[in-house]
Amino acid sequence: MSIRRLQPEGRLSGAVIHGNTVYLAGQVADDPTRDTEAQTADILRQIDLLLAEAGTDKSKLLSVQVFLVDITEAPAMNRAWDAWFDRANPPARATVEARLVDPRWRVEITAIAALA
Amino acid sequence: MSIRRLQPEGRLSGAVIHGNTVYLAGQVADDPTRDTEAQTADILRQIDLLLAEAGTDKSKLLSVQVFLVDITEAPAMNRAWDAWFDRANPPARATVEARLVDPRWRVEITAIAALA
Amino acid sequence: MSIRRLQPEGRLSGAVIHGNTVYLAGQVADDPTRDTEAQTADILRQIDLLLAEAGTDKSKLLSVQVFLVDITEAPAMNRAWDAWFDRANPPARATVEARLVDPRWRVEITAIAALA
Repeated sequence: MSIRRLQPEGRLSGAVIHGNTVYLAGQVADDPTRDTEAQTADILRQIDLLLAEAGTDKSKLLSVQVFLVDITEAPAMNRAWDAWFDRANPPARATVEARLVDPRWRVEITAIAALA
Repeated sequence: MSIRRLQPEGRLSGAVIHGNTVYLAGQVADDPTRDTEAQTADILRQIDLLLAEAGTDKSKLLSVQVFLVDITEAPAMNRAWDAWFDRANPPARATVEARLVDPRWRVEITAIAALA
Repeated sequence: MSIRRLQPEGRLSGAVIHGNTVYLAGQVADDPTRDTEAQTADILRQIDLLLAEAGTDKSKLLSVQVFLVDITEAPAMNRAWDAWFDRANPPARATVEARLVDPRWRVEITAIAALA
């Protein structure tokens, strides 16, 4: 099967496509000064862009992992999620707490999606 | 390849099948008041049910990720694991500490399995 | 698709191959007394060995997850990473903080790679 790498940025790729499966790097907000809901919305927008570049979209998300700096902010993350996810095609998901590389980041999201 | 979603519950699916691979959402115990060993046993029972619904079983687990609220409770988690896992077919596994969405949850487990 | 398990060690396998995809267990350093950079270098050496046994190599890494006991040690982890990773073929990657099972471990890394 072919391997294709999107948005290589030094030590990692933004996404790697293997056959019919796309693996996304941990996505973080462009503006780390915003709150958890806004950071999540920005991350989901970036996921849309990566999936589009890969040739797929959020209706084909398979698995999502959400890391929150403060797990009590899960409701804020979920507000952005609920405004975005495809209700006919929800992915498997797990949400846990973890400190992130930039202390201003409130949330980081990884995902695996299908191309077809 | 086809995508099939099991146990959709609002913002996520309990499992998503893509071709021959099944991605499970983070599983947590039905009764969050129990201890780590009992919560783990309950989660593993739920994983059995999800895998059965997907048309597979624990002998085809590929990768498992365990999140423990308190990493010093790994031995308690492992007691339930050791009573359950298929010794002829152990999956790749990683166990790390993370706070979880419900503060009563002691453990959350995600997994990837093969259908065939 | 076939399933093949490498380095089974009791309750988990070091790697599991499913079709063209290899799932690696969380890798930790053989010598837990060393610093984060040295532990990371040792883990990456072990990943090389596992990938070779699976019949692949780091140029086919798809996705990597790094858990650091202290997220402020990301630069030390990245020094070992930068000396190792294939610049023509960087994987998707996410790095978060998590306490690990052995309190002396500074870093644990999981990965998914392609066989072909």
